[in-house]
Amino acid sequence: MDGFLLPMDFTTTLGLVAGTLTTAAYLPQVLKTWKSKSADGISWSMLVILCSGVMLWLLYGVYEHDLPVICANVVTLMLSTLILGLKIRYRYPVRG
Amino acid sequence: MDGFLLPMDFTTTLGLVAGTLTTAAYLPQVLKTWKSKSADGISWSMLVILCSGVMLWLLYGVYEHDLPVICANVVTLMLSTLILGLKIRYRYPVRG
Repeated sequence: MDGFLLPMDFTTTLGLVAGTLTTAAYLPQVLKTWKSKSADGISWSMLVILCSGVMLWLLYGVYEHDLPVICANVVTLMLSTLILGLKIRYRYPVRG
Repeated sequence: MDGFLLPMDFTTTLGLVAGTLTTAAYLPQVLKTWKSKSADGISWSMLVILCSGVMLWLLYGVYEHDLPVICANVVTLMLSTLILGLKIRYRYPVRG
């Protein structure tokens, strides 16, 4: 049945779309945090655990030579680190 | 070199730890949102795009018969949907 009902690259396309969505999801959060100048509603633990996990996914992608996993996690790591950075910046503003 | 410097199941373990972290990350966010009775700091778009993406990852796992992907994404879907549900509940409280 496989390959008859579904085109051969259906699951690959599905994975790519899924990866694009779970990566792109953090972009509106970056914009919201940037505009509101606050990330108080976002949990510190969530951001730290998320960044660590994404870093390990990236390492996993490197070991597995899996380019889609590497690309998705490089972008997710950038966005989640950016949210964490903004949270630190707005929580502990530099005075001077 | 592969399999000589690294034990054979190193990357699998790495993937499992990474998946556990990126899944568990949403738990402190659920608790924070529940305790503060507000999810105003979390972007609607982020939650909706994230839930859609995780749903597609789950479908990907089902097509690929990939149990770790299925398990991780079932839990992530539950937690992200819970945050979305709490955001809706606190944003539009039922009056009566």
